[in-house]
Amino acid sequence: MLKSFEVTALSGELDSDIQHKIDFKTKPPGSLGGLESIAFQVARIQRTLVPSLQRAQMLVFAADHGAVDQGISAFPQEVTPQMVTNFLAGGAAVSVFCRQHSVALKVVDVGVKVDLPDHPLLSKRKVAYASQDFSVAPALTLEQVNQALEAGAKEVESAEKSGVDILLFGEMGIGNTGVSSCMLSAMTGQAPEQTAGRGTGLDEQGVSRKANIIAASLQRAEAELNKSIGEWAPWEVATQVGGLEVLAMSGAMLRCAELGKPFVVDGFICTVALLFASKLQSHVVDYAIFAHQSNEQAHQALLEYFNAEPILKLDLRLGEGSGAILSYPIIQSAVAFFNEMASFESAGVSNAT
Amino acid sequence: MLKSFEVTALSGELDSDIQHKIDFKTKPPGSLGGLESIAFQVARIQRTLVPSLQRAQMLVFAADHGAVDQGISAFPQEVTPQMVTNFLAGGAAVSVFCRQHSVALKVVDVGVKVDLPDHPLLSKRKVAYASQDFSVAPALTLEQVNQALEAGAKEVESAEKSGVDILLFGEMGIGNTGVSSCMLSAMTGQAPEQTAGRGTGLDEQGVSRKANIIAASLQRAEAELNKSIGEWAPWEVATQVGGLEVLAMSGAMLRCAELGKPFVVDGFICTVALLFASKLQSHVVDYAIFAHQSNEQAHQALLEYFNAEPILKLDLRLGEGSGAILSYPIIQSAVAFFNEMASFESAGVSNAT
Repeated sequence: MLKSFEVTALSGELDSDIQHKIDFKTKPPGSLGGLESIAFQVARIQRTLVPSLQRAQMLVFAADHGAVDQGISAFPQEVTPQMVTNFLAGGAAVSVFCRQHSVALKVVDVGVKVDLPDHPLLSKRKVAYASQDFSVAPALTLEQVNQALEAGAKEVESAEKSGVDILLFGEMGIGNTGVSSCMLSAMTGQAPEQTAGRGTGLDEQGVSRKANIIAASLQRAEAELNKSIGEWAPWEVATQVGGLEVLAMSGAMLRCAELGKPFVVDGFICTVALLFASKLQSHVVDYAIFAHQSNEQAHQALLEYFNAEPILKLDLRLGEGSGAILSYPIIQSAVAFFNEMASFESAGVSNAT
Repeated sequence: MLKSFEVTALSGELDSDIQHKIDFKTKPPGSLGGLESIAFQVARIQRTLVPSLQRAQMLVFAADHGAVDQGISAFPQEVTPQMVTNFLAGGAAVSVFCRQHSVALKVVDVGVKVDLPDHPLLSKRKVAYASQDFSVAPALTLEQVNQALEAGAKEVESAEKSGVDILLFGEMGIGNTGVSSCMLSAMTGQAPEQTAGRGTGLDEQGVSRKANIIAASLQRAEAELNKSIGEWAPWEVATQVGGLEVLAMSGAMLRCAELGKPFVVDGFICTVALLFASKLQSHVVDYAIFAHQSNEQAHQALLEYFNAEPILKLDLRLGEGSGAILSYPIIQSAVAFFNEMASFESAGVSNAT
């Protein structure tokens, strides 16, 4: 049985007080646009009129994928551990941006194909040395799926114990855009042509090849399950075509929501992890702050499904949590205006006539 | 005669080196989207492969407008000095966000209707106690226009002496969205229905009234100049329908460009100031980083005219430089990835096949 989570709906008890506080700041109502929604959401999640984001943690989940053997990425598989090493050494985009914003970075190995040397920023929770190639067999066992969900949940618990009040998620795993497209098709019934995109840099031919591999993999699984895509249970999606780092992010998101903490969703892959999490507990979405809209084609539709208004639209397509950390100062600005701006009354400013 | 500026075109000498440095960072080419363009632009402006943004300064120019008597704003004119006081006391949005990012804030009074008490963050460069109501007479004399341009230029010179390497601009002045719409129509020949928007919070009827006032004002000036809108010389635009804080921003932008410094353009009003500046020296635009796209209707078209891809699209419509300062950490991230990210070679990461 799939590991279970219990996410309760957010209370609307403070909603009118929160909105009142936003509206009586020294600014025309609504004039801070998207920042007002974020402030509202964080206050609602924290159930307070004085929300606070004192300590953030970036968790980058890393894993490999057997399906890479079929040629679904522009980069070779060895890049996964190479980039993990780069994260840890401080040379990757996510490292640079975390340093800029004084946000702690941790890399969680849940399935990299090789053993990684010890490092203070590396958490070893390897479930497998990569998933199986899902074009020929199920990607994961149910036990592995649960271990991945648990790995994510455990990391969040550990962060909470250190006083972290907001989590940012990212991922690294050569081939995981394709894996996420496959999971998305499996969950929604959308054809692979709609869910597969350029990833880190495939050309049109590469995207088409990727879509074909995904289609073949889904057909293999449909035959095995005797169910069309869109009709599979979550555990079937996860075992047939899941990725370990994607599932670990889902587990982390669900545990965040259980603990009443907001979390920041990075790009396409991370949003697919949220979709999977929402299939287990729909209210997990209430805790999600959407960082950005990438230029991976299926991301926009997925964001629309969630009614999400992401903070940034900068045509990012790097992953590794880079969009999440880039959006973080804006999230902090939302909390700052809510707490620190004067009201019309306190500042002696006349309101609109 | 209008104060003159001399802005030279940027050299493309380092362009290929800059692009090479961006492309060999440990990321797929182009995957940092808009950040790559900003890094390129800052390196180009600073003429170096190691650009640096160590010290930023926010300048908020404040003034009043005679045309407010006709009812072009949702807020009464007394709000201009009240909000200046709020900026100085640290309670406004721009104050909060500048504090968050450790950016120095200065308010420059170029035309507030009342005398403001001394304050360490206030620079007194008052040109007039508000402009004239342009629905009945020219807004400003040529001397006043030049004083406003000069006030902006002087503030930038003073910032440069303190080691500031990037300027952010904002404005405060009840009625100045309408003034900017009027300037925009005068410069481009667009009808007021296309350039007038909601400002800080007018309803449909209010917008329509504002467009009518602008139309009447432009007709008065057309009769006086015996020229249709779209055909006026810059000095005619400025004297007939200019706003002091708008022109001060134009002067500041032009001096930034003369000194080879990048500057951040806030919302609609600030972008109109850039348009005016570009009518004097077209290359000023090369130094402009566009912070955001507001939901003032004419802003989008104006950004398209400049081929601008603004950093944020958060439906902001507050002005006061709030969008500029919110975008600032993203600009810093662009410089940070350019300087600090590892290259494929230095990190030992395999490139795409």
